[in-house]
Amino acid sequence: AAFVRDSLRSDGLIFRQLFDTSGSSTYTYLLGCPITKEAVLIDPVKEMVERDIAVVDGLGLKLKYAINTHCHADHITGTGDLKKKIPGLKSVISKASLARADMFVEHGDVISFGADSSSINLEVRATPGHTDGCVSYVCDNMVFTGDALLIRGCGRTDFQGGSSEKLFESVRNQLFVLPDETLVYPAHDYQGRTMSTIAEEKALNPRLGVAKTKEEFVEIMNNLKLDYPKQIDKALPANLKCGIDD
Amino acid sequence: AAFVRDSLRSDGLIFRQLFDTSGSSTYTYLLGCPITKEAVLIDPVKEMVERDIAVVDGLGLKLKYAINTHCHADHITGTGDLKKKIPGLKSVISKASLARADMFVEHGDVISFGADSSSINLEVRATPGHTDGCVSYVCDNMVFTGDALLIRGCGRTDFQGGSSEKLFESVRNQLFVLPDETLVYPAHDYQGRTMSTIAEEKALNPRLGVAKTKEEFVEIMNNLKLDYPKQIDKALPANLKCGIDD
Ligand SMILES: [Fe+2]
Ligand SMILES: [Fe+2]
Repeated sequence: AAFVRDSLRSDGLIFRQLFDTSGSSTYTYLLGCPITKEAVLIDPVKEMVERDIAVVDGLGLKLKYAINTHCHADHITGTGDLKKKIPGLKSVISKASLARADMFVEHGDVISFGADSSSINLEVRATPGHTDGCVSYVCDNMVFTGDALLIRGCGRTDFQGGSSEKLFESVRNQLFVLPDETLVYPAHDYQGRTMSTIAEEKALNPRLGVAKTKEEFVEIMNNLKLDYPKQIDKALPANLKCGIDD
Repeated sequence: AAFVRDSLRSDGLIFRQLFDTSGSSTYTYLLGCPITKEAVLIDPVKEMVERDIAVVDGLGLKLKYAINTHCHADHITGTGDLKKKIPGLKSVISKASLARADMFVEHGDVISFGADSSSINLEVRATPGHTDGCVSYVCDNMVFTGDALLIRGCGRTDFQGGSSEKLFESVRNQLFVLPDETLVYPAHDYQGRTMSTIAEEKALNPRLGVAKTKEEFVEIMNNLKLDYPKQIDKALPANLKCGIDD
């Protein structure tokens, strides 16, 4: 059998998954064009910016965009610090997030980078419910779901304009409609799992799997009794300003 | 551009990278055959066995082998607990490790599983130097290097029969001879990076990159002044017995 996987490939995409070792268990994703060396980071974390820049530099890449899936409440985004260190870098977030950034995206927009012959396209899908401004990014056979869809779970819906009803509709109508073999790359996993697939989440997600009704999902979310997030009072105001104190 | 990456593919390999969230930053790798559902785990961690079994079960896989790259000093292997929970599972380690296991491998051996038409083969390469019993496993375009070659680093060589000279020879003659695009999957990364390539390590590894001589490498390793490993007095005796107290 011929296997082709995540790699530095002359004919494809440079792709790296990076884990926040500083405490928030956030996954940051690096996507780069092997021809033009243009690259983007999805959900960079402030504490990991030096690591991210070393990885980017090692691969000979030039960062064009630092993109957030949503205004995070559990860590401070690295976009502000990346902008300070990389002149010309543009921060990107959804318009609906109400956060500060250089570029705002909405459902249906496409973020493109790389050479014409191998253009890399991130299709923006609005997936509100964890926050009202959450988006997911679809790139070929991968989807970066932020906190809308996690591996065997989902983000909480009890603050930041969260809505269990909206999250159910987002996951069912925007994510579960993707091909079964689509690779799911979330913003977090707290058990050290690195990826899932749409097929797996449809079958195995205990909250959002296809066996669950909207009413059952809302009931589950209403009964989570979660603690107030540790970082929210620091992270939210900072992330509304692109992670920069000013 | 058509990208094909880590996935649950009908024509290929089921592959998952799993991270130890309990403290040792160990990567465990799951490889499975989509036809027969036979699977193996490389470097499972005792504390993560429940997680690993849930991932294996979720994908409908049956574990055949639990394989170690070496007798670890920083965590207790999960092979013993896996054997208790999965009748018929065989533990595997190198003969040179002097550890207990059901099956012993040596340089040049091949561990095979899966259907005839898509047999998955792990080629064993002796890569001593971090320990005298370290092996790496080559599977198609991937190499699982244990602590012989880490991302921009390597395992220490100052105990467990370690030898900087041997490690240099192992990395240069057994790993750097693999195709440049080979994906490097180490047993650990402490900065949250998930993979590298042979090309990158040849160019960028500050200790073992091709610009370094053996003498320079030995000098670097002699001057690391590392602390005594926290877990070694507990982990080593346990791992010599397959991770089981008896
Ligand atoms: Fe969030
Ligand atoms: Fe080790």
